[in-house]
Amino acid sequence: MNRLLHDLRIVEISAFVAAPLGGMTMAQMGADVIRIDPIAGGIDFARWPVTKDGASLYWAGLNKAKRSLALALDKPEGREIARALITAPGPGAGILLSNLPPLRGLDFASLKAGRADVIALRLTGNRDGSAAVDYTVNAASGFPLVTGAGGGLPVNHVLPAWDIAAGLYLATGLLAAERHRARTGEGQEVVAALADVMLATVGNLGYIADVQVNAHARPAIGNDLYGSFGRDFPTADGRRVMIIALTPRQWRALGQATGLTERLATVGTVMEVDLDTEAGRYEARDMIAALLGRWCAGHSLDEIRQAFAGTGVLWGQFQDFQQLVRDDPRCSAANPLFAEVNQPGIGPYLMPGLPLDFAAAPRLPPRPAPRLGEHTDMVLAEVLGLSAGEIGRLHDDRIVAGPDGR
Amino acid sequence: MNRLLHDLRIVEISAFVAAPLGGMTMAQMGADVIRIDPIAGGIDFARWPVTKDGASLYWAGLNKAKRSLALALDKPEGREIARALITAPGPGAGILLSNLPPLRGLDFASLKAGRADVIALRLTGNRDGSAAVDYTVNAASGFPLVTGAGGGLPVNHVLPAWDIAAGLYLATGLLAAERHRARTGEGQEVVAALADVMLATVGNLGYIADVQVNAHARPAIGNDLYGSFGRDFPTADGRRVMIIALTPRQWRALGQATGLTERLATVGTVMEVDLDTEAGRYEARDMIAALLGRWCAGHSLDEIRQAFAGTGVLWGQFQDFQQLVRDDPRCSAANPLFAEVNQPGIGPYLMPGLPLDFAAAPRLPPRPAPRLGEHTDMVLAEVLGLSAGEIGRLHDDRIVAGPDGR
Repeated sequence: MNRLLHDLRIVEISAFVAAPLGGMTMAQMGADVIRIDPIAGGIDFARWPVTKDGASLYWAGLNKAKRSLALALDKPEGREIARALITAPGPGAGILLSNLPPLRGLDFASLKAGRADVIALRLTGNRDGSAAVDYTVNAASGFPLVTGAGGGLPVNHVLPAWDIAAGLYLATGLLAAERHRARTGEGQEVVAALADVMLATVGNLGYIADVQVNAHARPAIGNDLYGSFGRDFPTADGRRVMIIALTPRQWRALGQATGLTERLATVGTVMEVDLDTEAGRYEARDMIAALLGRWCAGHSLDEIRQAFAGTGVLWGQFQDFQQLVRDDPRCSAANPLFAEVNQPGIGPYLMPGLPLDFAAAPRLPPRPAPRLGEHTDMVLAEVLGLSAGEIGRLHDDRIVAGPDGR
Repeated sequence: MNRLLHDLRIVEISAFVAAPLGGMTMAQMGADVIRIDPIAGGIDFARWPVTKDGASLYWAGLNKAKRSLALALDKPEGREIARALITAPGPGAGILLSNLPPLRGLDFASLKAGRADVIALRLTGNRDGSAAVDYTVNAASGFPLVTGAGGGLPVNHVLPAWDIAAGLYLATGLLAAERHRARTGEGQEVVAALADVMLATVGNLGYIADVQVNAHARPAIGNDLYGSFGRDFPTADGRRVMIIALTPRQWRALGQATGLTERLATVGTVMEVDLDTEAGRYEARDMIAALLGRWCAGHSLDEIRQAFAGTGVLWGQFQDFQQLVRDDPRCSAANPLFAEVNQPGIGPYLMPGLPLDFAAAPRLPPRPAPRLGEHTDMVLAEVLGLSAGEIGRLHDDRIVAGPDGR
């Protein structure tokens, strides 16, 4: 958390990862992000992982630092409240972030009728509006068929990488559009398609050109690093490490730290490649790996850590989620990224803030996610100026609900 | 490309994916992004994929729409030119984006001495400044050990997802810092660590809380969708499809489109779960998959496409990079994201623009990456006001170089 964007107000109508992450990124820089959900919660309200009581740790993780308004979006009066919140006056207000199809009365034209300089960001699945999610976009990307050992069986990523990229593109687009509005007074609709995020990325990494220019596609090569040297190795004590040599300096450090410099040089001679180049190391990778693999198998993880400490070798250990959380000092309150925070309805745990340190905006402790409907009354009073009587009537009519579901 | 940020100038000293992607994102919104590289090219200048002549399709992909300046960063006079470019006057200038350790004279304090309101964004590996790259950060994340079928062997992602997220966080942070400067006159240093990007994401998705609150960690479940229904299936003609049911509507559509509604309902009875809930479908996933798998095995990809068309079933086909580029209409110039552009030194191919459509800033064709040093003279003249004679002297002294390497 910091206060860098304290003068912005963003209304978010969203679900799952992408738009919630985009909105949370703004909230963690101090923007007032009001997430609107149906009274019983959105379609992501119970997403796994959950606690034994069914509270979603996923929802809590992706909605930190926001305010929550529970609203009957299936009723015209509910949608009219949403429209009023999105189009309310104020130089930093008038911004909608959404990854759901626009509801009646909440399309861009309707919003613009309420506020001429409104900014609306919308993530779709495909550009034509048809559905696509991280799983389907990923299947089409080409990556699952080159993940793992190959053999024609796709391996999906577990990290929802396309959603995360899309959410951060939305955050970037939001700030760019708000910058334009601050300079020109002009609002606009900004649309991104999740499939286009994937397509642009495949192109940015050179894989479209590889097919078109080279008539070639990157093969599946397990955990090897394409075009350079990198591979995973088992250690003497049953752990695994990833060892990499991207640069000549890293390559030399690896030879020195393992005592294998001369034998590795022989590999270059035998394979007739220049091991000071990435392409040379890639060509000779199996022979390099044979030497490094024997060395790793003869050393425990601790011995490897000691051998590599301070040498410039680029390496890392594999760890599972439990090992990450329990053993890695980077994943603890010793890292300023984190603080132990009490999440209402769940309890205290280690919560990350934004992975950006702004010198001019000191880091504040992470703020938990709201309870569903926690800020309903506060937002209606503050933003729309509704009286207690009017708010009470909306509760009675089931147009809004508070944290008790009423 | 668009012209939304046409009044910004950003100097980029970078390599590999993260900072180049962040800078390219700005360039694709019209910012003047000047990438400075050593005269022979940076450490990523030959990264794979490459053409048969060794031109890097990867470098071309991540540096589109930028200007390139080749500079002897190993010499004090070269670094002084870099410093002058970064700290040159102008309201939209004075911004550095880097993921390399700061060179002498280019640290934040030195830059600030040259321009009080300078903004410098820096990506490090770990927060303590030690090296970390996507491969090592990923090994530590926990994800490789739950990717694929499990059994304790890690499976690395191929998409450099942490780098991509970090690059987009940098883009967001740059716009937030520039917004702050426009309002207050205050510059600042903004620092992100790649490891923190990973740690924040693991936390945002609920996996840290899962360990701390539930003493549980998500297992490896192949291509299944955790906590809901999703799995890949072979088709009658040797293709593979991903079929998903996140919402009750998608679940009902799947039963109807396959004609399996009644048999799937029996699965719910037999397994004693409510298949209208995600948790129920996850619990019963193997039995659901047995029915769906037999159905898919009896249908070709085309038959499946026809059966699912217009039904609301959420599904996608797996395809490799070649199939994506050659067969998927989304990956063609029919998609406004793309245009066929000539990349100097490589030739024409399908180039993506930014996956964001700004209504107020019309999409322009993608601009290719520069040749290394292509804009050296232009930038020195335009930004620093150097004369032709001074620029000639810098070439003679090997302080700068043009596209011919001199």
